[in-house]
Amino acid sequence: MSGSEFQLINHYFSRLGVDRTDVLLGVGDDCALLQVPEGQVLAVSIDTLVEGVHFFPGVDPESLGHKALAVNLSDLAAMGADPAWITLALTLPRVDEQWLAAFSSGFAALAKRFQLQLVGGDTTRGPLTISVQVHGFVASGKALRRDRAKPGDLIYVSGTLGDAGLALLAQKGAYDPGADLAALQIRLDRPEPRIGTSQSVRDLATGAIDISDGLLADLGHICEQSRVGAVINLSNIPLSDPVRVYVEKQQDWTIPLSAGDDYELCLIVPARHQAEIEARAQGLDVGLSLIGQIEVGETIRCLDENGTQIQIGSGGYDHFPSS
Amino acid sequence: MSGSEFQLINHYFSRLGVDRTDVLLGVGDDCALLQVPEGQVLAVSIDTLVEGVHFFPGVDPESLGHKALAVNLSDLAAMGADPAWITLALTLPRVDEQWLAAFSSGFAALAKRFQLQLVGGDTTRGPLTISVQVHGFVASGKALRRDRAKPGDLIYVSGTLGDAGLALLAQKGAYDPGADLAALQIRLDRPEPRIGTSQSVRDLATGAIDISDGLLADLGHICEQSRVGAVINLSNIPLSDPVRVYVEKQQDWTIPLSAGDDYELCLIVPARHQAEIEARAQGLDVGLSLIGQIEVGETIRCLDENGTQIQIGSGGYDHFPSS
Repeated sequence: MSGSEFQLINHYFSRLGVDRTDVLLGVGDDCALLQVPEGQVLAVSIDTLVEGVHFFPGVDPESLGHKALAVNLSDLAAMGADPAWITLALTLPRVDEQWLAAFSSGFAALAKRFQLQLVGGDTTRGPLTISVQVHGFVASGKALRRDRAKPGDLIYVSGTLGDAGLALLAQKGAYDPGADLAALQIRLDRPEPRIGTSQSVRDLATGAIDISDGLLADLGHICEQSRVGAVINLSNIPLSDPVRVYVEKQQDWTIPLSAGDDYELCLIVPARHQAEIEARAQGLDVGLSLIGQIEVGETIRCLDENGTQIQIGSGGYDHFPSS
Repeated sequence: MSGSEFQLINHYFSRLGVDRTDVLLGVGDDCALLQVPEGQVLAVSIDTLVEGVHFFPGVDPESLGHKALAVNLSDLAAMGADPAWITLALTLPRVDEQWLAAFSSGFAALAKRFQLQLVGGDTTRGPLTISVQVHGFVASGKALRRDRAKPGDLIYVSGTLGDAGLALLAQKGAYDPGADLAALQIRLDRPEPRIGTSQSVRDLATGAIDISDGLLADLGHICEQSRVGAVINLSNIPLSDPVRVYVEKQQDWTIPLSAGDDYELCLIVPARHQAEIEARAQGLDVGLSLIGQIEVGETIRCLDENGTQIQIGSGGYDHFPSS
């Protein structure tokens, strides 16, 4: 891109308006210089969104800017980390001011909400590709890891599951949720990273994952890395009204359990903290539901309201022996 | 991509073989957990290479793997930082094992040489795009910044300038360097990050930049951010034999001064350190040449061997008043 095009692009992203004291040197030198607070370790995660793969061409750029950052912040929430800095590698087919204004506005609004500073980036010409790396802090030894779940631990999820999956199904024309479509679509297009929920209860949890690939797949990662199994009570899975109607009508649990894209948290909590986490959950904007328990084993068992084990699609988890 | 495709890709990058004690948790959780040593600050830089923009389709993947990492390490060298960790966002049109083996081999060899550990990444399907973020450490207050140059400071460059530019010119068919083409091509395809040079002399320098856009443009960034001018003696610019022949034949200084892609270091050194830096330079693999001096002003003046000021193409530097 030409120098003036770069200036134009930088103009949009320079308006993020967050100015942190732990950024010793921001954009404009060979590297950014950043200070991790004493006693804290650095948590980093990177995600890429590609047009035509992760989002449809022509998707609302303001929502896209939000989502590109939100899916990364969700990883920090799942690690129990506080958000701090972002880098953005943006590849654009052309300089479209209207698109840039909307994209950067969605990105900046979320960044500002969590006091994230953009400390570096690279803008290049090419097919639309967005790579965001987030950087956060977590107190030494306090991270919510996938490999610490123990039999007897409780499994909680935040919010409701299946809304984004049902929106995608509707988008494909495979189901009509009627007047609920708009609300479902917002869950798909503008996921809300559960940073606040994580900050409120992380000291009670030992592990967490964000539900991007579906509860069974993501809880499966925890089970695999912790070498345990799990049991899930389907009647305790938190569902919004339209997803509850869908599950009852279609007798299909794959949408809440395997569809993903909800970016809710799945938390692993030692049983001794049950009363405390449920007391704290009262004060949160987003509900926390106890959906099951870690157990000895190599599979995730799903039980219906009668305690009968049922098989859910192909989205289940079977231990894959690591070599 | 499918699960088995991801496993295949991860297989290639899991062979990097570097295992650092400051990586508390590497690939495989929501975030990597990293420990910055006490007294050090974190230096980060991100660069993206897009097929058809930064490299030709069909370019040797082993060299591409090297270059994708090298251009980022060059930024750490220019900051005076020690390399530590990498993340890689790789977008691939298809899973081509031969390509992946070669690309990861070039990438891994350079990573291993500098004890860099791959701590995270995201692999997606789409047009070939490579984003690498490097993370390094620099002692608090010791970074080589662009905004600290003072009138009287000396300007050094490492290695030779113009080799990569001449290779590109030859590739375009605009010049025939004869038997020297292969050596020039290596400078363009496999730039060598000047980490060792930086580590050897960084305590004597106050500023640095890596020469990716050409000496005049990059030194211009230092002048602009430090609000100074500079004078360059052309007869001191270090040139390889083929570039010297080219400049003499064509009477064209733009290749060594404006072509870029050499990834040599331009160092700003207070005059009191001249004897010490030149003594240390004797022990380096790569030469350091004193090419000029920072002065009061707003331009970079280029003087020929008679001390006559000459104008170099359009690649010069004029102060752009910041608003």
